Amino acid sequence: MTLRYDTISFLSDYGLGDEFVGVVKSVIRSIAPGAAVIDITHDIAPHDVRAGGLALARSAQYLMPGVVLAVVDPGVGGNRRAIAVEVGDGTSVLVGPDNGLLAPAVAMVGGASRAVELTAEQYHLPSSGPTFAGRDMFAPTAAHLCLGADLADVGTAIPVHSLTPGVVPVSRVDDDRIYSEVLWIDRFGNLQLNLDPDEIEPLGDTLRLTAGDVGRTARRVDSYGELGTGELGVLVDSYGLVAVAVNRGSAALELNSVEGDSITVETGGPAPPTPVQLQPRRSD
Amino acid sequence: MTLRYDTISFLSDYGLGDEFVGVVKSVIRSIAPGAAVIDITHDIAPHDVRAGGLALARSAQYLMPGVVLAVVDPGVGGNRRAIAVEVGDGTSVLVGPDNGLLAPAVAMVGGASRAVELTAEQYHLPSSGPTFAGRDMFAPTAAHLCLGADLADVGTAIPVHSLTPGVVPVSRVDDDRIYSEVLWIDRFGNLQLNLDPDEIEPLGDTLRLTAGDVGRTARRVDSYGELGTGELGVLVDSYGLVAVAVNRGSAALELNSVEGDSITVETGGPAPPTPVQLQPRRSD
Amino acid sequence: MTLRYDTISFLSDYGLGDEFVGVVKSVIRSIAPGAAVIDITHDIAPHDVRAGGLALARSAQYLMPGVVLAVVDPGVGGNRRAIAVEVGDGTSVLVGPDNGLLAPAVAMVGGASRAVELTAEQYHLPSSGPTFAGRDMFAPTAAHLCLGADLADVGTAIPVHSLTPGVVPVSRVDDDRIYSEVLWIDRFGNLQLNLDPDEIEPLGDTLRLTAGDVGRTARRVDSYGELGTGELGVLVDSYGLVAVAVNRGSAALELNSVEGDSITVETGGPAPPTPVQLQPRRSD
Repeated sequence: MTLRYDTISFLSDYGLGDEFVGVVKSVIRSIAPGAAVIDITHDIAPHDVRAGGLALARSAQYLMPGVVLAVVDPGVGGNRRAIAVEVGDGTSVLVGPDNGLLAPAVAMVGGASRAVELTAEQYHLPSSGPTFAGRDMFAPTAAHLCLGADLADVGTAIPVHSLTPGVVPVSRVDDDRIYSEVLWIDRFGNLQLNLDPDEIEPLGDTLRLTAGDVGRTARRVDSYGELGTGELGVLVDSYGLVAVAVNRGSAALELNSVEGDSITVETGGPAPPTPVQLQPRRSD
Repeated sequence: MTLRYDTISFLSDYGLGDEFVGVVKSVIRSIAPGAAVIDITHDIAPHDVRAGGLALARSAQYLMPGVVLAVVDPGVGGNRRAIAVEVGDGTSVLVGPDNGLLAPAVAMVGGASRAVELTAEQYHLPSSGPTFAGRDMFAPTAAHLCLGADLADVGTAIPVHSLTPGVVPVSRVDDDRIYSEVLWIDRFGNLQLNLDPDEIEPLGDTLRLTAGDVGRTARRVDSYGELGTGELGVLVDSYGLVAVAVNRGSAALELNSVEGDSITVETGGPAPPTPVQLQPRRSD
Repeated sequence: MTLRYDTISFLSDYGLGDEFVGVVKSVIRSIAPGAAVIDITHDIAPHDVRAGGLALARSAQYLMPGVVLAVVDPGVGGNRRAIAVEVGDGTSVLVGPDNGLLAPAVAMVGGASRAVELTAEQYHLPSSGPTFAGRDMFAPTAAHLCLGADLADVGTAIPVHSLTPGVVPVSRVDDDRIYSEVLWIDRFGNLQLNLDPDEIEPLGDTLRLTAGDVGRTARRVDSYGELGTGELGVLVDSYGLVAVAVNRGSAALELNSVEGDSITVETGGPAPPTPVQLQPRRSD
């Protein structure tokens, strides 16, 4: 049997500790046994729509054309819409909740051509409760799209401009200081900032980074390998964004930062040493 | 080549930190390359047969017909039997240790039609030690069942009634109070109780939950969406059982509970406020 | 389309929290959609080349013939070479960094027949930065090897003897005492030592283990099942090496050990009870 799409790329906040991911895959295989499922990640923090949207956007250009199934859904059982969004004139379809999760990836691949709300209940599983939308609604819809169902079959058309936008933080420049935000901290402790390389170009090769109380000087390099072990550097990461890294160490620990934190970037050089006051303090 | 079964659903307590799961899949693929393996979960707590059995039972009705490979096996190397159990008149076969792990799922799908002890060593890998039964006995047996081996080929028939039963805790009603147990806490902190919806029906729309020292009032709702953020509710979960949930929060934290804990459920309304004693305590 | 290799066995320190593993698989599928990827493990501690190499060596004899993709790469972006190593006269090819990660597995399967440095950039993805070699270099190379590219196509021949060797710790015998090292602690707390069974054979059935400050007596057994619950034993594990185990407990906790620690093994018997000194201590 020929499939319209033969790959489902699957991202969620389900974790791997419960059987959620396995059950969703079983549902897909029971409907479209020929479709392969590729796990993008399931360790998005529970209900963290922003982190899920960013992970999907980072992955987008590398995913197989086909169906993208993405579920980070704090509003399940509420009145958020369930949607399918077509991109690339039908090359791929993204399926998930309409809460901004899909928006950054959709934007990354050129925008939506069509969208539907998933109202066609004949494509859903009968469910004993309303709370496992991934299993009962999103997975069977994704599988039926692989089998050849059209977007118009699985739902009711909705205007593309009505989709909930993603929240992508914008950097701000004030004189020679750039106010940026930590988009992502990876397993190795690298900090990805919401900065394009050309934004930091004018600041030179030595940068001053300030994260809350912590200030550090970092060297602008082209790769980890240029840094000494434990040295802090700023480089363009493999996604084309500015990142802060420590060679064989964790920049997140060094700057005491978590995702969403603000980082100020300035022209650097080491901070001047604090003058040591040897004389007794004068009383004015 | 046509397979008798083309899917192996795989659950274990192996975790993903070691190479156990990967090696088991490699063994399966080397014997039955056409069989797909779907991971149900491998994060069952080490040796927690009860939790593994419940996860398998929750998954059972959604799994692809085929072979179910389940290994949570604290008695490996001892005298527990290794078994294969046929259900649905051959629709599926469950393979694993005879320690109660398979029993809840077998019951869920209508009971066993046949069972064997895995005595046919020609279907096992030669092993350098007796301790990795998943790799050396269960995986090759599962793969050969996919290729077409009959239950009678891979072992010696044993009476179905001799299989070790699973332990499923039963709730108890005493006057207007229901004594229930936490079957499962999922990643989102929802507590699944061993209660059918009709058991709590007579208690009304406001329920009093007591877990050890902690007492809380919860509202009976149909979905998370009816709860305010942080509000505690009782609903029927996606498996048809009674669950306690906090919208965008963790009921497990709210009730300070772990799996296996007792929860008492009563007709609710807030507990009467503790009267404040302003006068000095009389000495009798 | 016929594939030269139809399976890629994949091990890394990428973890499953980020989308790294999913993106690597997407890249593979976009090039060689017919190749199956089996995850060995991705939870090698970040940059722990030794642990990755040992996990790969333990798995080696069970892996499907084909391509092995292994990435634990603290020197990415530096001057370590990226390599492909042929073993078994072409039965399998290992792809990864030349930092000793592949060496123990290569040795385990009989040594390398050919090796190349991955210099053929037409088999790499164009990358916006130099830091994600798994996605941009190793994965597409592995996929093209599946499609039929020869080792000579994907890189420049290098002498097999120039490959970075793995570090496998050697045990040392001093009189009746064996100084061993903990190679691996698995999820269940079992300690695998760098000892062959015949090394401890002369020591008898009761062994004295010393790990730092902690001394314990252990019984030589053939399987976990011979141990009482909580009893410490020494057995041959499923890889043919000597391991320390506690039945239904953790030997790592019992001996307060981590990977890489030294364990001294001697002929045992319980330590003689400390004599109780009832008389006052004589002053000499």
